[in-house]
Amino acid sequence: NSSFDQKKHPHRRYNPLLDEWILVSPQRANRPWQGQTEKVTEEKLPDHDPNCYLCSGNVRVNGERNPDYKGVYVFDNDFGSLMKDNVQFSDEKSDFFSLKPERGINRVICFSDNHSLTLPEMEVDDIKKVVDVWQEQYKGLGAEDYINHVQIFENKGSVMGCSNPHPHGQIWAQSSIPSTVLRTQENLKKYFEKNGCSLLEDYVKRELEMKERIILENEDFVAVVPFWAVWPYETMIISKRKAENILEFSDSEKLSLADIIKNLTIKYDNLFNVSFPYSAGIHQSPTDGKPHPEWHFHMHFYPPLLRSAEVKKFMVGYEMLAEPQRDITPEQSAEILKNLPLLHYRNK
Amino acid sequence: NSSFDQKKHPHRRYNPLLDEWILVSPQRANRPWQGQTEKVTEEKLPDHDPNCYLCSGNVRVNGERNPDYKGVYVFDNDFGSLMKDNVQFSDEKSDFFSLKPERGINRVICFSDNHSLTLPEMEVDDIKKVVDVWQEQYKGLGAEDYINHVQIFENKGSVMGCSNPHPHGQIWAQSSIPSTVLRTQENLKKYFEKNGCSLLEDYVKRELEMKERIILENEDFVAVVPFWAVWPYETMIISKRKAENILEFSDSEKLSLADIIKNLTIKYDNLFNVSFPYSAGIHQSPTDGKPHPEWHFHMHFYPPLLRSAEVKKFMVGYEMLAEPQRDITPEQSAEILKNLPLLHYRNK
Ligand SMILES: O=P(O)(O)O[C@H]1O[C@H](CO)[C@@H](O)[C@H](O)[C@H]1O
Ligand SMILES: O=P(O)(O)O[C@H]1O[C@H](CO)[C@@H](O)[C@H](O)[C@H]1O
Repeated sequence: NSSFDQKKHPHRRYNPLLDEWILVSPQRANRPWQGQTEKVTEEKLPDHDPNCYLCSGNVRVNGERNPDYKGVYVFDNDFGSLMKDNVQFSDEKSDFFSLKPERGINRVICFSDNHSLTLPEMEVDDIKKVVDVWQEQYKGLGAEDYINHVQIFENKGSVMGCSNPHPHGQIWAQSSIPSTVLRTQENLKKYFEKNGCSLLEDYVKRELEMKERIILENEDFVAVVPFWAVWPYETMIISKRKAENILEFSDSEKLSLADIIKNLTIKYDNLFNVSFPYSAGIHQSPTDGKPHPEWHFHMHFYPPLLRSAEVKKFMVGYEMLAEPQRDITPEQSAEILKNLPLLHYRNK
Repeated sequence: NSSFDQKKHPHRRYNPLLDEWILVSPQRANRPWQGQTEKVTEEKLPDHDPNCYLCSGNVRVNGERNPDYKGVYVFDNDFGSLMKDNVQFSDEKSDFFSLKPERGINRVICFSDNHSLTLPEMEVDDIKKVVDVWQEQYKGLGAEDYINHVQIFENKGSVMGCSNPHPHGQIWAQSSIPSTVLRTQENLKKYFEKNGCSLLEDYVKRELEMKERIILENEDFVAVVPFWAVWPYETMIISKRKAENILEFSDSEKLSLADIIKNLTIKYDNLFNVSFPYSAGIHQSPTDGKPHPEWHFHMHFYPPLLRSAEVKKFMVGYEMLAEPQRDITPEQSAEILKNLPLLHYRNK
């Protein structure tokens, strides 16, 4: 009857943002892998690709031509998941067949006219321009009457379903607050109502004291492997002060955000010496015109890779039916990420 | 200002089992796909593979040798996510760093000694033997003092992280009720307390009246594309009568279950004429010794494929951060599955 060791024994951890538990199996990290592996292609891409529908001056699938843009470029997604139309609908109450039309706007944000760059290889000043556009878009879209939530995100890498290596992200802005955001909001709210302060502000303070899971820190932001991380190298960028959303950030805070995004994604690329795939996105207050003192700006990074550039973590079976499960502990991942250099492997 | 058409207009649907909404974008089904495609290999496998660690008489990775089994064979997973050990632990209350040791048992169930068979190609009588073993395992594991939940599931296909084509499933039995099961239980309970009957019993009755989403039906079970399905060809097998768990099923009900599993998986294989990948698993009452009148046996099938054997749905970005999103409607998927033949494409 030995005593518990979190580096050795299976355990569950609590995620206070989603009010649910996850399973951690540190003893499982060394099981052999005979399953599917991912293709890794590390060819040098051209600065401009005549076949890329996101490059300056090229024609998109729907026949429209991109302008000869420099820097950041935003346009409405040609195959959006939402439509602006206001349709007539009569609601019927039902236990099993509840359905509601949903209005919204989908946009694509090209981070740069340079086809070959990704965030870790862009200059901080150029990433800052992306942050500026996020701020403008959140403001402009949020100002629309029927837009109550603006989801800003990036899918990077073919393993994340991204069909184009041109550096870009997306925005899905819509009438409703999406399920996961609503759950997060409810938990932030419970904490705020109980304690009169931000859950994430208190959490960041504790992490900064403990130092165990902090990857990066600058004047305004930290990057941390959350105690309850699910993906092997999952991280969160959190603002040190409680900002409800991106509109509150000054120029120098936006530069800090660009700086920490650059350094975090450099570390990611340096982990396996490949352009590191992930889905990343911002959680912040909805644009529903209500007060949201509970909200605290943060950005999630969910990267799928586990052991190498070729072997990812499969969230299947038990994870889909029962609960998220991880192998290496968040502290082990944090240690590895912390020790990686801030010079991008391609510049060595 | 046209009127709402669920085959054309983006909308959200409510999932009463998880108390959350999902986004349906029917207009998006025809967007072109330039992203990652899956490898499809359709070689004829041998009945016995000397390199397979699940075949009769072979040596496994940890050096143990499988017996010369015929039919179904169960063993403890060599690289389990859980351990039986009872470790000493002192609980500390914490808002952000809650952690608890978790005990449990992981097992592997080989469905057949025949390496080349999968469920749709097995005889109903042989699938019935798998169901018998599920029942025995649920009973035996559930009888252990420290096992309060028994998760039975199958990952099929390399795209679902399954490393071995030998037909097999898994059981993860543990002390806690996993997050997603607990959420389901809470919602079943709310309905039961309000209406005095089973949510899924009432739901199945309505689906049988409407017929729109029912794929298969036999004396004891239905297979339906739920109104709130997330995966393109997601289905549920639900018992017509409210059984809290698999222990309640008679021999003839177990045969019915085997029959509907066979026919559903045949339809899946016939969809794209490939061995169709999925994660599937049973949701039923926990083995925590408490009364569970709210529970109603059902089995989820989550298949990843979308347009073809090569193109899957990526649940990334928006889906990870905001909420699940699907393209074709559940009714369209049901129509397609309904019309597929019950003769397996390999037997044509
Ligand atoms: O147990 P396996 O088949 O080796 O592993 C697979 O199924 C498990 C349970 O769904 C997952 O946790 C793993 O990520 C997956 O690769
Ligand atoms: O919009 P894209 O890049 O074509 O598509 C990708 O991202 C979307 C949003 O995360 C997902 O819904 C799609 O499944 C995925 O393939």
